[in-house]
Amino acid sequence: MFEDLEFATSLGSDNHSGVHPKILQAVVAANRGHAHAYGLDEVSKLAALEFKRLFGDTVEAQYVFTGTAANVLSLSGLVKSFEAVIASEAAHLQQDECGAPEKFVGCKVMTVPSRDGRIRPEQLHTRLQRQGDQHFSQPRMVSLTQPTELGVCYTLPELRAWREWTTRKNLMLHIDGARLVNAAAFLNCSLRALTADIGVDVVSFGGTKNGLLGAEAVLLFSPLAKAHFKFYRKQAMQLSSKTRFLAAQFYAYLHQDLWLEIARHVTKTAQDLAARLAEIPEIQVQHAVESNALFVRLPKAWIGPLRERFFFYVWDVEQNLCRWMISFDWQPETNTRLVDAIREVRECFREK
Amino acid sequence: MFEDLEFATSLGSDNHSGVHPKILQAVVAANRGHAHAYGLDEVSKLAALEFKRLFGDTVEAQYVFTGTAANVLSLSGLVKSFEAVIASEAAHLQQDECGAPEKFVGCKVMTVPSRDGRIRPEQLHTRLQRQGDQHFSQPRMVSLTQPTELGVCYTLPELRAWREWTTRKNLMLHIDGARLVNAAAFLNCSLRALTADIGVDVVSFGGTKNGLLGAEAVLLFSPLAKAHFKFYRKQAMQLSSKTRFLAAQFYAYLHQDLWLEIARHVTKTAQDLAARLAEIPEIQVQHAVESNALFVRLPKAWIGPLRERFFFYVWDVEQNLCRWMISFDWQPETNTRLVDAIREVRECFREK
Amino acid sequence: MFEDLEFATSLGSDNHSGVHPKILQAVVAANRGHAHAYGLDEVSKLAALEFKRLFGDTVEAQYVFTGTAANVLSLSGLVKSFEAVIASEAAHLQQDECGAPEKFVGCKVMTVPSRDGRIRPEQLHTRLQRQGDQHFSQPRMVSLTQPTELGVCYTLPELRAWREWTTRKNLMLHIDGARLVNAAAFLNCSLRALTADIGVDVVSFGGTKNGLLGAEAVLLFSPLAKAHFKFYRKQAMQLSSKTRFLAAQFYAYLHQDLWLEIARHVTKTAQDLAARLAEIPEIQVQHAVESNALFVRLPKAWIGPLRERFFFYVWDVEQNLCRWMISFDWQPETNTRLVDAIREVRECFREK
Amino acid sequence: MFEDLEFATSLGSDNHSGVHPKILQAVVAANRGHAHAYGLDEVSKLAALEFKRLFGDTVEAQYVFTGTAANVLSLSGLVKSFEAVIASEAAHLQQDECGAPEKFVGCKVMTVPSRDGRIRPEQLHTRLQRQGDQHFSQPRMVSLTQPTELGVCYTLPELRAWREWTTRKNLMLHIDGARLVNAAAFLNCSLRALTADIGVDVVSFGGTKNGLLGAEAVLLFSPLAKAHFKFYRKQAMQLSSKTRFLAAQFYAYLHQDLWLEIARHVTKTAQDLAARLAEIPEIQVQHAVESNALFVRLPKAWIGPLRERFFFYVWDVEQNLCRWMISFDWQPETNTRLVDAIREVRECFREK
Repeated sequence: MFEDLEFATSLGSDNHSGVHPKILQAVVAANRGHAHAYGLDEVSKLAALEFKRLFGDTVEAQYVFTGTAANVLSLSGLVKSFEAVIASEAAHLQQDECGAPEKFVGCKVMTVPSRDGRIRPEQLHTRLQRQGDQHFSQPRMVSLTQPTELGVCYTLPELRAWREWTTRKNLMLHIDGARLVNAAAFLNCSLRALTADIGVDVVSFGGTKNGLLGAEAVLLFSPLAKAHFKFYRKQAMQLSSKTRFLAAQFYAYLHQDLWLEIARHVTKTAQDLAARLAEIPEIQVQHAVESNALFVRLPKAWIGPLRERFFFYVWDVEQNLCRWMISFDWQPETNTRLVDAIREVRECFREK
Repeated sequence: MFEDLEFATSLGSDNHSGVHPKILQAVVAANRGHAHAYGLDEVSKLAALEFKRLFGDTVEAQYVFTGTAANVLSLSGLVKSFEAVIASEAAHLQQDECGAPEKFVGCKVMTVPSRDGRIRPEQLHTRLQRQGDQHFSQPRMVSLTQPTELGVCYTLPELRAWREWTTRKNLMLHIDGARLVNAAAFLNCSLRALTADIGVDVVSFGGTKNGLLGAEAVLLFSPLAKAHFKFYRKQAMQLSSKTRFLAAQFYAYLHQDLWLEIARHVTKTAQDLAARLAEIPEIQVQHAVESNALFVRLPKAWIGPLRERFFFYVWDVEQNLCRWMISFDWQPETNTRLVDAIREVRECFREK
Repeated sequence: MFEDLEFATSLGSDNHSGVHPKILQAVVAANRGHAHAYGLDEVSKLAALEFKRLFGDTVEAQYVFTGTAANVLSLSGLVKSFEAVIASEAAHLQQDECGAPEKFVGCKVMTVPSRDGRIRPEQLHTRLQRQGDQHFSQPRMVSLTQPTELGVCYTLPELRAWREWTTRKNLMLHIDGARLVNAAAFLNCSLRALTADIGVDVVSFGGTKNGLLGAEAVLLFSPLAKAHFKFYRKQAMQLSSKTRFLAAQFYAYLHQDLWLEIARHVTKTAQDLAARLAEIPEIQVQHAVESNALFVRLPKAWIGPLRERFFFYVWDVEQNLCRWMISFDWQPETNTRLVDAIREVRECFREK
Repeated sequence: MFEDLEFATSLGSDNHSGVHPKILQAVVAANRGHAHAYGLDEVSKLAALEFKRLFGDTVEAQYVFTGTAANVLSLSGLVKSFEAVIASEAAHLQQDECGAPEKFVGCKVMTVPSRDGRIRPEQLHTRLQRQGDQHFSQPRMVSLTQPTELGVCYTLPELRAWREWTTRKNLMLHIDGARLVNAAAFLNCSLRALTADIGVDVVSFGGTKNGLLGAEAVLLFSPLAKAHFKFYRKQAMQLSSKTRFLAAQFYAYLHQDLWLEIARHVTKTAQDLAARLAEIPEIQVQHAVESNALFVRLPKAWIGPLRERFFFYVWDVEQNLCRWMISFDWQPETNTRLVDAIREVRECFREK
């Protein structure tokens, strides 16, 4: 089946890749007999243990279908409609959810300028001036993307400073961790160190972009986040029935630390690629490469021909800035093929 | 993996079963290389053709993750927040969505009493009296479940009468078809005859309960239903990224009419079971068996011991009415095992 | 100004009347100099004392513009989007808010059948069966209309039974008291006896229908109801700026018990009218007259000519059942004029 | 009544003042007999004619209770939940509605930086880059505040340029005209020239801040804006019952051009005050004075003592920038009293 279809190699997004073979095997293995729906099955119990092993005993992991849903449901029990979540202006929450937080939570997303997706507590000064003023959406949560949409990581001290500051200001702390695993690989720390040990309230923990078929988890740490989650999830149309197949994906991903193997691989592959691009003077890599993303400024003329061979998105048209995302199945040889293609395009234009 | 887990045989729901082998094969087959996300892949194109083959050229099929989402997104472009959808009081839309239509669409669900889940246009008389009255949520759509939550089917003439009446009253017509395929099997008609040929505006077309891993489709027929669907879906957190894996499931399900094979199988198996239950005088099967559901009234004492062997839900505690759902993998031998178990329980209590 | 306009005498609604002269005087008297907006003015402080005098020290009275808003904001801090409020199927909350609770709170309104608008705890049995079931909107509040939309009153023992039952079931208790004053007049008890002493959580306390220019109050009793009210009100677009003019209306209405004078007057006038209608054999008054409403079954032919003289609404077309509402400015002579008109119409048809 | 209460003179807001005597007279005059509710009364008809006289025949004026409601209901029929409204970052819509647009419409408010509240089409370039991208809230409307929250006016050519540009980009155009009358006074043009003649789709037309007791109007020009307005208004809890009293206010305000008299008076009084402040070297008036607002930078030490005599808000604490709003009842003598008070405070600090 599908033998005739062509499947390319893409830099477009880490969701252009398919499913990691071990994860797909787990889905197949879970396909036996009947099981209770809605998370009451045996596979879900095994997966829950894996989450506790990696994030500590206080975590409650709940599945949803998309990253947008993970972000929105991270807010739903914690942010009331008259409150606001504060995020970087580059945040997925602000730029790429088509207003789902506003629609489902009814709240405001307040943004803070940022060059590389990171924000600092000092930037929020004016946001907190109108506390108690009924005319103004009341800030209630800070959402940090780790690594950011621009591929850089908050350090552990930075995260700790955020927690300390948000606690002092009576704000909740959320981490949008669609690629949180890559931050753990880059910072060489455990997932727990990045979350439970910091004291975050709730985390969007990505799966699909890291090799799963299609599953995300919301990691609930604070009691308030846990209190009504299952009802909000159902009302958000995110309650899966054959949950064992979502659980199986996460089980295979977490068990035996496949997540770390993949995260190290993509981060290292992205850094290797950046090193090789450094040898091409016409190309500048913007931002530090601390995850699986490269933001690459190319000569304008190269973009078209290169996209025909390896699809990618132009992030900023005016700056000829392109985003290249490395998927779990990207190999050293793929890097070589890509660099070769760049050199060919370069030659082509040099000749003219 | 998961070799040690126990998987029972369940009558609890048709989502207690796993994935049909041919459908899982398609998922595995689609796992090659990279593909565009969000439905722009080649598998999605193939699946789209299958939908057009079965539902006619006017159909636009869009995937979502759950039946709740299919129902809510069937409303979102067609029903405004000050309007209402009318449904049977037994409708999933009213009883089992945890208020998702109210939350996401902002509209009212108006209900009409029903014994077997079917409703008739005559029942809506008073609902339409206040047309134009700004104090009253304005009826805009009728939603019929086919087959109903009680397992019976609207006939084709009944559906045609509904379309004629709703058109006359300027109402849209939605079909909640979580198990629409079973109605096609029972009525021995095409899927197109049940939908496009009737002139329905939008259909929730079930997958997960019929053997898929996890996917539902919204079938958009009228231009208004199509107009903004993709934006509402994204905002409803229902846009899958690795869409090829949802499309692969539907492709395998529709291609070579696997859907019909499964639908005939479960409907016939349910009817066979009903016939064998007729021989047990203590048992009454309520409602005609026109799908894969049996509503079975049991002696109260039998319920406990029987549920230990084959899990099922008690639909109405006071009436000892139980719901038995037949999944795609239920075999004639499973019927035999079940009837044997009933006879054993019966003996056990007779002896006392 | 407006000297040439014709203003009729209407039975259509108690909001067809204007403003009680003493209340309008208070508005005029409050029009001096400048005052802080949003309830921080001196008139608001005086009115707050009146509310405490009549409802006890635990009350916090907050103004809104409409009865719909009072009902919706009674829910907003107490009922989450995945929860439900239970009301009579005749309730204004269900029939006459154009879906405002669904839109603004996102919750479900669950209805219970009723002949005269009153409901009994026994009717809620099946509504509470699915507690904890994530697929089902969770009942959280019971809303009683006092007097009901059909003009009858819950007795104090009935109210106490409701409070006891809702407390046992962990439900909040709301009273829609658009005409609560009339219940106090009919039951000959204080406003406090009907609310704080019962232990209700929140009350919609009507003003406009009882002689105010345009103002309603939400009476907050339980701490949770008070907690975030001002933010929900602002977000619900119900925060008045020149609040002194709303406060002045309520001050004049409560001070020196003008409310009671009006309530006794309209209730007695309605009962007097019912007594006089009893002498006309073709007319039946349905429901006990325990407020300012009469539900009157008339010969079909009389309706047209009578409506031309005194406007009213036909409540149920098939039963020729009409609703007559008595406003604060309806006099004994108006009753006489109305009865004379009825007799004239009667003669007119008798002759034919 | 209220004889003992103290009412100060305030610069805090133009809603700290009371009701213009002629407008209050109209309210009193409308208090005769009974009238149909919900806008079907005779006073409403007279007021509707006044709106048509001033804004042209295409206008449909509908009343709401607050400026927040006027803004939100200006959006509700025109902006879908997945769409966005673009406004200045200083806009009331963004800063002072406590998230009401997000809650009620479900849409996103996108902001554009601005120094004096005015924005230019060129600033929207990047907002429109993602048209058709389902991940991004789709811009649908531009909202301009006229005069801006900083008290400056868009010129007629600027407005025409906005209309031309929005039409080309398929965007709707809204004007938040809480003080639109002042712009007409400053620009010396008709209200029609500022709205219908420009071709705006919908206008929030303020009343309360300009001398009304409490009423705002939404002016609907485009057919889509009119289509479902009454239902959205009711669901937004903004349908007044005794509408004649809102209509009477607007009738008195528009009839015989009282609006223009007031608008000229407050704008001129503000400009006169600015001229007198220019003589005090320690004071800088920021922004041109083109409405009834002055943004005044004061020596920090003066603020406290001055606020005790004339209440006002400090707009920007760090810059000692204060906002002074001139109400309809502010007289030349009040200016003199204020300037005298400033001089006294100045002397007081000079002596030290």
